Amino acid sequence: MKTNNIKCELSYDGTFFHGFQRQPNQRTVQGEIEKAIYKIIKQKVTINSSGRTDAGVHARKQVCNFLIEGSIPAEKWKLALNAVLPDDIVIIQTSKADQDFHARYDVREKIYRYYINNSKTANVFNRNFTYQFFQKLDIEKMKIASKLFLGTHDFTTFASTKTDKENKIRTISQSDLWIEEDQIIYQIAGNGFLYNMVRIIVGTLIEVGKHKIESEEIEAMFSLKRRNIAGPTVPAKGLILWDVHY
Amino acid sequence: MKTNNIKCELSYDGTFFHGFQRQPNQRTVQGEIEKAIYKIIKQKVTINSSGRTDAGVHARKQVCNFLIEGSIPAEKWKLALNAVLPDDIVIIQTSKADQDFHARYDVREKIYRYYINNSKTANVFNRNFTYQFFQKLDIEKMKIASKLFLGTHDFTTFASTKTDKENKIRTISQSDLWIEEDQIIYQIAGNGFLYNMVRIIVGTLIEVGKHKIESEEIEAMFSLKRRNIAGPTVPAKGLILWDVHY
Repeated sequence: MKTNNIKCELSYDGTFFHGFQRQPNQRTVQGEIEKAIYKIIKQKVTINSSGRTDAGVHARKQVCNFLIEGSIPAEKWKLALNAVLPDDIVIIQTSKADQDFHARYDVREKIYRYYINNSKTANVFNRNFTYQFFQKLDIEKMKIASKLFLGTHDFTTFASTKTDKENKIRTISQSDLWIEEDQIIYQIAGNGFLYNMVRIIVGTLIEVGKHKIESEEIEAMFSLKRRNIAGPTVPAKGLILWDVHY
Repeated sequence: MKTNNIKCELSYDGTFFHGFQRQPNQRTVQGEIEKAIYKIIKQKVTINSSGRTDAGVHARKQVCNFLIEGSIPAEKWKLALNAVLPDDIVIIQTSKADQDFHARYDVREKIYRYYINNSKTANVFNRNFTYQFFQKLDIEKMKIASKLFLGTHDFTTFASTKTDKENKIRTISQSDLWIEEDQIIYQIAGNGFLYNMVRIIVGTLIEVGKHKIESEEIEAMFSLKRRNIAGPTVPAKGLILWDVHY
């Protein structure tokens, strides 16, 4: 039988998942998708993703792929999967990929967004997708500081010490912060991210917004390579995997 | 001790509530607020609202009031209540009202919105606040039909037969339908609404959008006063109490 490589673009609300990666006895995005595939064609299939996301992190667009035998046309997988998946995962598109396409190995760039609600009143409708921060932040200082993460750096200071990656050097091609209504939005694009890296960068930008860290200190923070001098890791619920480019 | 009349503006995500009105052994908005007041001042207090909302219906702005003894200044009630309420209710503002202000009896106008996602792909981030409707709707026809609900009518055809109101005549001052991104938004303002009235009007507008009902039929539907000739009652989750005017 012919083997098809299906590329799948999906979104999910991470609130009720223990992250993307399959784990025994935990509700995960990968676990739910593999269960859904099994329901449709009674085959045990392992999916590849562009990368795991942590518990509570959301995806506007995550990408995965899986190799499958059978006659279901690639573009029909969208409807088939959406029919059996729980409503906190939505398949946006499925298409036929080249035989050698791999959702993780072929990533060129990933884009993340982080949402902070900086108003005096929480918004009940987006409370699972934003970090409610009541204290007024200095947005202009945060904008200036955000630019210092651009380019190629060793991100040891801005990664969890639990990271399993040897090479801590990453290249950031976008690092923008702006306001939309009551929300502060931070968007970062890069060729790769270390464990908790976006959440620690945002935690550091918030310290800048509180005047606890000066922009001028960030260069020295990079060179010291010590996690404990950066800001705290902000909550997962404000983080969204925004897009993946191949 | 002095009695204060506190006016309270609040929003809630109706997803996990059995409606606004207190009921034994059910999680309701009124029940949670009265529990919160009790936690703060150890007094059993009954709150009045602008009107109940059904299970699953949300509020961007609901208004309630309660009479209370004690020295907590009216505007401090916002922080006090938000500190003890669950995160699906948010108090927007509290203020001192005239002694005779009553959140239900004094309503001049209420505004509701209904959200329909009419795209081919569900949006995982607003799935609890919108009715996902995949079949393409004729928006122009729906816009024309929406205008026929304006003015003073007997709304028997467009109300649940379970309504407990004798007088079915209501006056509608706004009835607009428009598109924002993938969402169809319907907004209706009036001096009062019968049970399920907004959801049945929207169900009827969707029938118009599907070319199952013609705009020209709506006048006759009013005059027949029979619930079963109108469209279906659309799901609660797309309905939001948008504002209340006094």
